[in-house]
Amino acid sequence: MNVLVIGANGQVGQHVIDQLKDRNHKTTAMVRKQEQVDKMKQLGADEVIVADLEGDFSKAFQGQEAVIFTAGSGGATGADKTLTVDLWGAIKSFKYAEHAAVKQFVQLSSIGAGDPDAQPDKIKHYMVAKAVSDQMLMTTALNYTIVRPGPLTNDPATGLIAKAETFTDVGDRSISRADVATVLIESLTNEAVRRQAFEILEGDKQLADALSES
Amino acid sequence: MNVLVIGANGQVGQHVIDQLKDRNHKTTAMVRKQEQVDKMKQLGADEVIVADLEGDFSKAFQGQEAVIFTAGSGGATGADKTLTVDLWGAIKSFKYAEHAAVKQFVQLSSIGAGDPDAQPDKIKHYMVAKAVSDQMLMTTALNYTIVRPGPLTNDPATGLIAKAETFTDVGDRSISRADVATVLIESLTNEAVRRQAFEILEGDKQLADALSES
Repeated sequence: MNVLVIGANGQVGQHVIDQLKDRNHKTTAMVRKQEQVDKMKQLGADEVIVADLEGDFSKAFQGQEAVIFTAGSGGATGADKTLTVDLWGAIKSFKYAEHAAVKQFVQLSSIGAGDPDAQPDKIKHYMVAKAVSDQMLMTTALNYTIVRPGPLTNDPATGLIAKAETFTDVGDRSISRADVATVLIESLTNEAVRRQAFEILEGDKQLADALSES
Repeated sequence: MNVLVIGANGQVGQHVIDQLKDRNHKTTAMVRKQEQVDKMKQLGADEVIVADLEGDFSKAFQGQEAVIFTAGSGGATGADKTLTVDLWGAIKSFKYAEHAAVKQFVQLSSIGAGDPDAQPDKIKHYMVAKAVSDQMLMTTALNYTIVRPGPLTNDPATGLIAKAETFTDVGDRSISRADVATVLIESLTNEAVRRQAFEILEGDKQLADALSES
């Protein structure tokens, strides 16, 4: 498939680009800055598009069959960017994807997005943005998969996860960005996760098997 | 009708409470602070409920037939509150209203909410919150009316407005909060504005006639 990765220069995004080079897909990395282009090519992107989530980036969707949305404004900017990038950038992506007849839309969300009111004050506004983005995606006709990982680490990939609609007790469990990237990529082709939102943590199930369980 | 006014202590909200006392409705004012209760009673509210948009305020919807949502976090707080109050508070209201079988939901929005990307950087994030709130309301089964006024003034009511789906040129036109409040109240009972979003400015048409035009 022709796969567009939005937020390709992000921490999870880079794992996605890296892992996609060993798969049978044509990868287009969307990044914000010209200076990020070479890095994307070195990581294995077939194409790189420079575009800004705060503007019109519809051109990136031409000819794409699938989208992996991993973009976020990050912790260094204010909540205004959470609105214009994380939320509005995602919603514009849904519209562009519908218009381009994209077949699969895989969105990176977060484990708190199912219930923002239960989150600590400090991150509640961010969880609202993720929750509303997820809810807006669910109202589209897109064939979506919404992946909500727990706390992220830079540990190496294990290929093992736990999956649940909602974990009742996360405890001190986390999940590596590398494993999250694999879940995003597997979701492109796994029919069991169509129009589903689910949480993932480190675990003891083979990743593909865990995704195939309903 | 039993009408719940959310954000009753806001600048437009106070006009709504004041004007509703001369109508054939039972008005419940929802405010955030206990110290605002007396003011609401003096303005003419039949009932006052103290509740927080950042928490669970479902109790306010019991027995209500209509809702006027005029709440906003205002300019004194950050964009995090734009997410948790303006956006998430509104979305929770839609859910509570659906659950309580509310018949009419009238939402105060803003003239920029139809196209956030066309707004100046300084207010774009706010317009995103209003736009997404409006879009989420449109996906519900509620009988909604979304009112998008231009720049607001404290001028006295004129009873005269201009209405359009989208004004191509706002120019230097504004609209008084008092006239906006009348539009919100008229929208409760005017069948012509059911499941509609529209912009309003000062103008030369009788307010009720302007609303009745499709």
